[in-house]
Amino acid sequence: MNNPPNRRINALRGLMSQHGIAATIIPQTDPHQSEYLASHWQARRWFSGFTGSAGTLVITMTDALLWVDSRYFLQAARQIEGSEIRMMKTAIPGYPTINEYLASNLHRGDTVGIDGFLFSAREYDSMKKSLKSAGIKINPSFDPVRPLWTDRPDLPSCHVIIHSTEYAGQSADSKLEQLRHTMAANNADAMLLSALDEIAWTLNIRSRDVRCNPVATSYLYITQNGGVLFINPDKITPETDGYLRKANIEIHPYDSLIQYLSQSTQPVIAVDPATTSARVLDILGERAMPITSPVQLAKAIKNSIQIQGIRQAMMRDGLALVRSFIEIEQRIMQNDTVTEITVADILHKHRSRQELYFDDSFDTIAGYGPHGAIVHYSATPETDARISTDNLLLVDSGGQYLDGTTDITRTMIFGLPSDRQRRDFTLVLKGNIDMAMAIFPAGTRGTQLDALAHMPLWKNGLNYLHGTGHGVGHFLNVHEGPHAIRTNDIPTPLHAGMLVTDEPGLYLEGEYGIRCENTLLVIPAMKSEMGEFLAFEPVTLFPFDIKLIDTSLLDDNELKWLNSYHERVYQTLAPHLNADEKAWLENATRPLRH
Amino acid sequence: MNNPPNRRINALRGLMSQHGIAATIIPQTDPHQSEYLASHWQARRWFSGFTGSAGTLVITMTDALLWVDSRYFLQAARQIEGSEIRMMKTAIPGYPTINEYLASNLHRGDTVGIDGFLFSAREYDSMKKSLKSAGIKINPSFDPVRPLWTDRPDLPSCHVIIHSTEYAGQSADSKLEQLRHTMAANNADAMLLSALDEIAWTLNIRSRDVRCNPVATSYLYITQNGGVLFINPDKITPETDGYLRKANIEIHPYDSLIQYLSQSTQPVIAVDPATTSARVLDILGERAMPITSPVQLAKAIKNSIQIQGIRQAMMRDGLALVRSFIEIEQRIMQNDTVTEITVADILHKHRSRQELYFDDSFDTIAGYGPHGAIVHYSATPETDARISTDNLLLVDSGGQYLDGTTDITRTMIFGLPSDRQRRDFTLVLKGNIDMAMAIFPAGTRGTQLDALAHMPLWKNGLNYLHGTGHGVGHFLNVHEGPHAIRTNDIPTPLHAGMLVTDEPGLYLEGEYGIRCENTLLVIPAMKSEMGEFLAFEPVTLFPFDIKLIDTSLLDDNELKWLNSYHERVYQTLAPHLNADEKAWLENATRPLRH
Repeated sequence: MNNPPNRRINALRGLMSQHGIAATIIPQTDPHQSEYLASHWQARRWFSGFTGSAGTLVITMTDALLWVDSRYFLQAARQIEGSEIRMMKTAIPGYPTINEYLASNLHRGDTVGIDGFLFSAREYDSMKKSLKSAGIKINPSFDPVRPLWTDRPDLPSCHVIIHSTEYAGQSADSKLEQLRHTMAANNADAMLLSALDEIAWTLNIRSRDVRCNPVATSYLYITQNGGVLFINPDKITPETDGYLRKANIEIHPYDSLIQYLSQSTQPVIAVDPATTSARVLDILGERAMPITSPVQLAKAIKNSIQIQGIRQAMMRDGLALVRSFIEIEQRIMQNDTVTEITVADILHKHRSRQELYFDDSFDTIAGYGPHGAIVHYSATPETDARISTDNLLLVDSGGQYLDGTTDITRTMIFGLPSDRQRRDFTLVLKGNIDMAMAIFPAGTRGTQLDALAHMPLWKNGLNYLHGTGHGVGHFLNVHEGPHAIRTNDIPTPLHAGMLVTDEPGLYLEGEYGIRCENTLLVIPAMKSEMGEFLAFEPVTLFPFDIKLIDTSLLDDNELKWLNSYHERVYQTLAPHLNADEKAWLENATRPLRH
Repeated sequence: MNNPPNRRINALRGLMSQHGIAATIIPQTDPHQSEYLASHWQARRWFSGFTGSAGTLVITMTDALLWVDSRYFLQAARQIEGSEIRMMKTAIPGYPTINEYLASNLHRGDTVGIDGFLFSAREYDSMKKSLKSAGIKINPSFDPVRPLWTDRPDLPSCHVIIHSTEYAGQSADSKLEQLRHTMAANNADAMLLSALDEIAWTLNIRSRDVRCNPVATSYLYITQNGGVLFINPDKITPETDGYLRKANIEIHPYDSLIQYLSQSTQPVIAVDPATTSARVLDILGERAMPITSPVQLAKAIKNSIQIQGIRQAMMRDGLALVRSFIEIEQRIMQNDTVTEITVADILHKHRSRQELYFDDSFDTIAGYGPHGAIVHYSATPETDARISTDNLLLVDSGGQYLDGTTDITRTMIFGLPSDRQRRDFTLVLKGNIDMAMAIFPAGTRGTQLDALAHMPLWKNGLNYLHGTGHGVGHFLNVHEGPHAIRTNDIPTPLHAGMLVTDEPGLYLEGEYGIRCENTLLVIPAMKSEMGEFLAFEPVTLFPFDIKLIDTSLLDDNELKWLNSYHERVYQTLAPHLNADEKAWLENATRPLRH
C-alpha cells in the first residue's frame, strides 16, 4: 500500500462503495473533450501514475485496468509497474473494449458511476446502449476525483490574449456572422461551443491554460444578437473585456454554465454531441439540436493570410532547427554530454529566439536508440539517455508562433549507420515521399491515401500502428480534426487549405525508432475534364538525414522529389543563415544520385 | 404517347391516384435483393426502357426520374431519349438522392407507395426515417407492377441441380451445422436466408433462374433440426428432392413464405436486414433478430478445394481466351467482318467447349472505340460496331464453370496504337499492377488499397468512377460481397482465400474505353514480429496487349511483375495448346524491356 496508485485506488473503492458504485471510469479528458489537459483535469494521471496523453482507467471493486493504445504500450507497462493496475491494449485482438469488459464483468443491476462532464454525449449514449443489454445502469453524477484529490490544482487563471486579425486572417465578427448564418439555416436559436480550440478560433482569443495548447478554458454560447463566454473572470484583462464587449459577448463565470442553460429560454440550441458533455446535453434535454460543429471544418481550412503565416512560421522554425542541430552535432562531436533532455532544451532555445514565438506546440520527444521505439516517449531525469554516435535519434518537436503551428519529426545518426538502419529509415522515408507525391480528386478522404505511407514497410513485413497524419491548428492545437490520414475511415475529405501531417514510422522495441514527419498543405493540383485534383505541398523546411538514405531503395520519382525538396529547403533558409550555417545546410541538402 | 415508357408511366399514374399514392419507386431488384434479376422482376426495365443492371425509377404525378450511377450515364441517356424520363446522376454534386428528392418535392401528408418486397429492411428504415421529418408516409403494400404488366414473365421454373462436394469442398450438412452453431451462439431459434447466392452456397444447389447467375429463386428457413426451402416445386427433381430430404430440408411453395412465417412459433429468428425485405421483417416483427448473415463471409473465403478449382477453371478460361483472340485477330486481319457481337459469340463458343463449362458469368461487354467508353455497354444489333484496326477494343467477359467463376477484361488494338492510346493504356495497367503488387497486414480493408489502382491516373488528372474490385463467387454470382475495393468504406477486411477483381479503367467519351481486369486471390504473404501479411495472386491467365504498353511509364518493379505474370501465363497455358496457338501466346507474352 506504499504505492501511491494502489493507495488512491483503494480510497476510491471506499468512495464507490459508499455510493453503491460497482465500477468507475476515469478518462483522460476535461469537460471540453480536450486531448491535452490543464493540470486540474489530470486525474487519470494522479490515480494511475501513467503520464501518457491518452488512456482510460477503469476501477472496479476487484480490478484496476488501464486501456492504452499502441503508442503507449511500453511506457504504460513501465509506469504502472508495482501497482495493481493491469494494462489493456486498445484495438489489439484478445483485449475487450471498456464497454465489453464492463458488460461481461459486472452483474445485472450494477451501477457504473462516472462524471458526466468528462464524457461526450456521443460516448455516453453508446456506453448506455451497450451496457443496457447487460442490465447495467450508469450514474452520470458520480465524481470520483473531487473528494479524494485534495491537493488538486486550481482551474487555470492566466490571461486571455487577443489574436490579431493580421495573423488570423478573419475577424471574430466575421466568424460569428458565419456561425449565425449556419444557426439560422438549421433553425437553431443558439449554439453552444464546448471545444476549446473552436472557441479560441471563433473569438480570435488565445491563452496558456493547457501546456503547449494556446486555449482558454471556457464555453461559448452564441445567439443571433450576442453571446456569453463562460470563463474564469480572472482571465479577462480590461483590454480583452473591451474586445469581447465590442463583439457583444458577455462574460459569465465558468461554473455558471449549467445554471444559465437551465434558465435559458432559447427553444433550440445547436450542440455537437462529439464535443459537448453528456452533462450539458442532459440539461438541454429536448432543446438540444445535435449538429456537427460548423467550426471544425471552417477552422481546418486555412485562409490565405493563415497560409502565408504558416509558410513564414515554417521558415523561422526551419532556421531554429538548423541552428539547433548544428549545435547538437558539434557538441556530440566534441564529446560533450548531450542527452535527450539537452536536445529538447536546445530546440526550445533556438525556437524561442525566433520572432512571433509563443510556446512549443508539444513536449519535444527526443528518443535515442531504444527510447525512439517508445512512440510518445518523453525523457525524464531518470530515463534521460546520452546521445552517442552508434544509434538513431528520433526528434519530434514543434513550435507555436503567432502566425502558425509547426510539427516535425526527424530521425538522424551522428555516426555511421548500419545497413539495416539505412534500409529501415529509407523504407519509412519512402512512405513519407509517396504520400507527399500523391495527387487525388477533390472529395478524397485521408483513409484512401493512408496505404501510400504504409506500403513500403508492408512490402517488407513491417508496420506502424499509429495514424499517418493529423490536422494541425493555426496557432492552436497541434492535433486537430476533422480530417486525418488513418487506416480507420474518417469521413471528412481533404480540402485545399487544410494542413495534415505525413508521419510514417517504424519502432523496433529495444533497438530504435524511426519517424519521418513533414506537415503538408493541401493545394489545388489541376483541373481536367475529369474534375478537380488536389496535391500536397510540404510546408516543413528541414532536410532528412541523407546519411540514412539508401538511394537504391528509392525509385527515380522519389529521388527526384527528395532532391527537389532539399533544394527548396536550402533556397528558402539559406538567405537567413550565416556562412557556417549555410555550409552545414548545403552539405545536408546536397543532391543524391542512384 | 406512342412511346411505351410514357404510356406505361401514364397508366401507373392512374393506378397511383386510385390508391392515393403521390410517388412510387421502382427499384432494380427482387424480393432477394439480387443485383441481376429473373425476367419476372425486370419491372424497372419494362417501365423505363433502360436496360442497365442498376438504376431506380421514381414516378410522381408530374415527374419521371431515373437514378443511375456513372457506369450508365451514357447508356441511360440514350435509352430514355424520347420518353418523359429525366436522368438523375447518383453521387454527382447537384443531384439529390431519391430520399432528398422526395422530401423536397412531395407535400406533408403525401404517401409514397412501394412494394415492400423489393426494399431491404435496412433501406426501408432509412427511407422511413428521412421522409418522416418531411411529414411523408410510406405505404409498403403498393404493387405498381402486377396490375399493369399483363404480359409479365412467370417465375422461373428450371430445375435445381446439386453442386457436388467434389467442387464445393464442403457439404451442405457441414455448412448447415456451422450456421446452426452461429444461431445457437446468438440465441436464435431459426435463421431466414433471402439472398439467392447464400441459399445456393448453403445447400450446394444451383439453377439457371437468373441469366449468368446460377441461383434458384427461393428462401431458406433453417432451424436447429431441419429447415424449409420455399421454392417453386416444379424446380425440384426427384433427385434434388431426395438430396434435400436427406439434409432434413422440407420443400414448401415459394409463395407460402409469408403465411408460414406468420404462423411459425419460433420466438427468435435471425435475419440480415441488408438482404431481407421490409415485408418479411414486418411479418416477423419482434421475433426478428437482426444479424449480419454469417453466410456472406463464409462464402467469400474460398476453401482449398474451391481454390484448386478456381485455378483449374482459370486455366481453361485462359485457353478459351487464347483461341478466341487468335480467331478474332485472324478474321480481322483477313478483313472479315468482325463486330462486337461476333466477339461475344466467339468467346462464348470457345468457353462453352471447355470442360465443366456451365454458362457465361455475365453478358460479354465488347466495346469498340467510343462504345468502350460506355462502362456497361452491351452491343445490340442496332449499335453493333465492326472492329477495325484503328481504335481500342475493350472486352469484359467471364465463364461459369462447375469449379469456379471467371471475370476478365482486356483492352487491345489490332493495328498500331497512337501515343495517347499507349499512354492511357499504360496508366491503367500501371494501376492494375500496383494493386496486384500490394502487400498488406491482415485486417486491411479494400478501401485502404483502392488508391493504388487510381494513383497513376490521378497523377495525370484522369480518373474512373466505378469500383476498383468486387468479390467473385465460386460457381456463383460474379459479383459478391462482403468485401470490395472501392473508394467508399467497406468494413469487411480482405481475408486469405477471398477473390477480388482488380479493374481500373479510363473512359473517354466519344473516343475509347480502357479497362485492365484480373481476378486476384488473397494469399498469405509472410508472418513477422509485426503480424501477418497478405498479398494478391492474379488467378486470371491471359496476357495484356503488349502493343499498348509504353514501358517508359512503368518502373522496374512494375515491368518485372508484368514479365513474370506473362511468363506464368505462358508456362501454364502452353502445355495445352497446339503449335500455332503456342507460337501466338509466346509472342503475346514475350518479355518487355525498358
